[in-house]
Amino acid sequence: MSNALAAETKPRQHVPLNGVDTPTLFATINAVKAQPELAKFQFRATNHWMTGTHNRTRIETFSGAGSEHRHTGDVQFDADHPAVLVGSDNAPTPVEFLLHAIAACITSGIGNIAAARGVKLTEVESTVEGDIDLRGILGLSDEVRNGYERMRVNFKIKGDAAPEKLREIVEQSKARSAVFDVLTRGTAVEVTADCATA
Amino acid sequence: MSNALAAETKPRQHVPLNGVDTPTLFATINAVKAQPELAKFQFRATNHWMTGTHNRTRIETFSGAGSEHRHTGDVQFDADHPAVLVGSDNAPTPVEFLLHAIAACITSGIGNIAAARGVKLTEVESTVEGDIDLRGILGLSDEVRNGYERMRVNFKIKGDAAPEKLREIVEQSKARSAVFDVLTRGTAVEVTADCATA
Repeated sequence: MSNALAAETKPRQHVPLNGVDTPTLFATINAVKAQPELAKFQFRATNHWMTGTHNRTRIETFSGAGSEHRHTGDVQFDADHPAVLVGSDNAPTPVEFLLHAIAACITSGIGNIAAARGVKLTEVESTVEGDIDLRGILGLSDEVRNGYERMRVNFKIKGDAAPEKLREIVEQSKARSAVFDVLTRGTAVEVTADCATA
Repeated sequence: MSNALAAETKPRQHVPLNGVDTPTLFATINAVKAQPELAKFQFRATNHWMTGTHNRTRIETFSGAGSEHRHTGDVQFDADHPAVLVGSDNAPTPVEFLLHAIAACITSGIGNIAAARGVKLTEVESTVEGDIDLRGILGLSDEVRNGYERMRVNFKIKGDAAPEKLREIVEQSKARSAVFDVLTRGTAVEVTADCATA
C-alpha cells in the first residue's frame, strides 16, 4: 500500500526479485489501468475495550478489486498506555502504531520499487521517532497540539546499485506512500457514537 | 495517549473505575502541570524488511517524564500486502494499522475520561473504515491522492450514564486524541536514507 510504479509501466524485462512477483505486479497495475473501479478499496477494523486504557483491534476483512477479501495472517493487535501514563502496558500506545505504519508503508514500497527497477536489495532497516508534548492531550496547554509535533524516519538501505539509485527508490516510495500522505496531509475522519445506558 | 482530562482537574472524589487508577492519573497530571518538561515524550520504532512487501517493526523503548522506559508487553508487529496486491498477506497492510491506531486512541481516552467523570462503562466497541483509491499509489492518476480519501469511526458505547453523557465522553476523547489530531491535521515527517552498495 505504499509503492509507486507509475514510471515503471513500460520498462525492462520484469522478473521476480526481492521476493516480489514483478510480472504479476505489473499485470495487476495494467488491469487496474484498464478498469479503474478495481482500484477502490475499503479497509476495516473493529476494536473492543477491555479495561482501563487496554483495548484490542481485529483486522480481518477488506474489499477491493471488485470483491471481498479476508486476511490470512495475524489479525489481532492490542494497545494500551504504559505504566508512566497510568496504563498497564499490555501493548504499545496508539501513537506508536503510527510509527509502525509509516516505516512499514515506505519499506513495502521500497521492496516493490526496487524489484521493478531491477535492484536487488540486501538490507532495508529503518528507525522512526515521534516527538510529542503530552500537555496537549492532558489538557494543560491550549498552545500544544495533541499529536506528534514531528516524526523522523531514517532508512539504512543496501543493494546492488549505486547509493544514488537506492536513494531514488526511497524517494519514490515516499512520494507514493499512502501512510506518508495521510500523516503529512491529514484526511477526513468522521467519528459517530451509538450510546445506551446499561 | 488519547485522553483529555483538562476539565477534570478539580472535580469530585476520584476513585479507581473502569480499570483506571484515577487518583494516580490526576496526580500524574498535576505533576506535569507543576513541571511541564515531564510532558516531553519521544516514541520510537525500528523496522526491518524481510522479503517482498513483508516487514517487521519492534516497538521497545521510549523516553518521557524525564527518563527512559521499556515496554513490557508485545513489541513486535508485522505488515505485508495482501495476495490481491501481490503480497504474501503475512499481516495487515500498513494503512490498516492507522485504523487500529485511531480506534485504540479514542477508546483509551474514553476509558480514562469516563473514569474521571465517574461513569462506569460496560461496553465500548468500535468499527473503523477507510476508503482508498489505489490509482494514487499505483501511479495511475495524478488526481487521486495516495492515502485514505476518508475514514469513519463508529462507537457503540454502554455505561451507567445518560446517552448524552456517554456521547460527551466520546466527543471529549476525540477532542484530545493524539492520533485523531495527526490523522486529521497532519504532521511533519522527515525521511532520510543512508545508502550503500552491497
